[in-house]
Amino acid sequence: MKAIGEKRWIIPDGYIPPSSSGALESHESVCVLNMSERDAHLRFTIYFEDREPLENIPYVVPARRTKHIRTSSLRDGEGRTIPAGVPYAIEVESDIPVVVQYSRLDSTQAENALMSVVAYPIREGEAK
Amino acid sequence: MKAIGEKRWIIPDGYIPPSSSGALESHESVCVLNMSERDAHLRFTIYFEDREPLENIPYVVPARRTKHIRTSSLRDGEGRTIPAGVPYAIEVESDIPVVVQYSRLDSTQAENALMSVVAYPIREGEAK
Amino acid sequence: MKAIGEKRWIIPDGYIPPSSSGALESHESVCVLNMSERDAHLRFTIYFEDREPLENIPYVVPARRTKHIRTSSLRDGEGRTIPAGVPYAIEVESDIPVVVQYSRLDSTQAENALMSVVAYPIREGEAK
Amino acid sequence: MKAIGEKRWIIPDGYIPPSSSGALESHESVCVLNMSERDAHLRFTIYFEDREPLENIPYVVPARRTKHIRTSSLRDGEGRTIPAGVPYAIEVESDIPVVVQYSRLDSTQAENALMSVVAYPIREGEAK
Repeated sequence: MKAIGEKRWIIPDGYIPPSSSGALESHESVCVLNMSERDAHLRFTIYFEDREPLENIPYVVPARRTKHIRTSSLRDGEGRTIPAGVPYAIEVESDIPVVVQYSRLDSTQAENALMSVVAYPIREGEAK
Repeated sequence: MKAIGEKRWIIPDGYIPPSSSGALESHESVCVLNMSERDAHLRFTIYFEDREPLENIPYVVPARRTKHIRTSSLRDGEGRTIPAGVPYAIEVESDIPVVVQYSRLDSTQAENALMSVVAYPIREGEAK
Repeated sequence: MKAIGEKRWIIPDGYIPPSSSGALESHESVCVLNMSERDAHLRFTIYFEDREPLENIPYVVPARRTKHIRTSSLRDGEGRTIPAGVPYAIEVESDIPVVVQYSRLDSTQAENALMSVVAYPIREGEAK
Repeated sequence: MKAIGEKRWIIPDGYIPPSSSGALESHESVCVLNMSERDAHLRFTIYFEDREPLENIPYVVPARRTKHIRTSSLRDGEGRTIPAGVPYAIEVESDIPVVVQYSRLDSTQAENALMSVVAYPIREGEAK
């Protein structure tokens, strides 16, 4: 059984651009690859600068599939979403190992700008 | 004998922009460096959101050479390619250690946008 | 108690663009996530190409919060800041583990350009 | 004595854009931070797709300084430089530990595009 990656990933620079122009809509994607034969059950935690975290946002990535998850589509059990135009940070936890990359397309101005990072992996047993 | 890097690399955020404008064509490159004295035999696996993976796509990077591989040029034994405009993820396996970086140039709008990440390395014996 | 990440992070490519145009101001952010129950006390050191480092710049990231820190807002005990238009490098030290990402928005020209990296973590006891 | 980082770093995706337009010139920078009390003596090796590597390109980063090195400024003992418009890869070796990041500004079109990665570190004794 093939399960590759880590169960916990961190993205400190989250930001949903508040506006778009041009052909493409501004957005962020958390791109998750699940190479295992089992579905991966994710939980997102969203940290802010000035308020309590948004916790326990669920998401499923099926076996041997990738999901490129728009952060604007995430919502917790009470339907709360991530506000646009606010700096935040993302923690992704999964019940089985996955690999996580984060990308942002900003089309606030007429032409688009791109950035991407592989998320920071937390190895198991590494909490101090 | 100098063989540096890892044999398995993951890129969760793959996407071939469906259109271009301006002087440069939209494209992705998987940039592989083989510092060894032997050729590296790669196999790509392409994971999708909603269908079975495309497996066993071969590529050779000669000894002491780099190859910047356009993802649109990859094809499996039956000639199947990666469709444009579809989110996917990339696994690169090599028979000897290499180093892998992924870059995307998006010229969907008049001006180009760039992003790049070093792929996520899977250390040998790390599958869980 | 949950304290995740590392206590020391390096960003070799720092640069505050000297000018802006268009809707957004050029800037850099050092994005820090503190997932612990305690405040994180940071100290920044700024290295230059041709002069002595700027040392002991303090910053606090509260418990269970993120801060996206504009580098132009940093100042040492004597009020010295990082000059714009000058290549420099950043060291972030924290009294408890945190995770650090660096992003730059450059709007020198009419349209903006983005880049981002997860900072390079120095594991404890790794100084040689 | 403080010497932090690694002695060997890899950047698979090197490319000097052949042309520029607008206010900024296209360029790549290899950004090196030397936090030690001693000068770091670097040697660059440049790998290509279709010819032998360019070897033994020297560069010095002074103690407690950063250098943001334009790749177009590098030249080996015989004065050979990296050609523009050609895919290549970079190996940086140093006699003492340093930290390396790679960034590219592409202003081929009127507006600039940026990308950046922390180079891939090779830990000592890791060659296989």
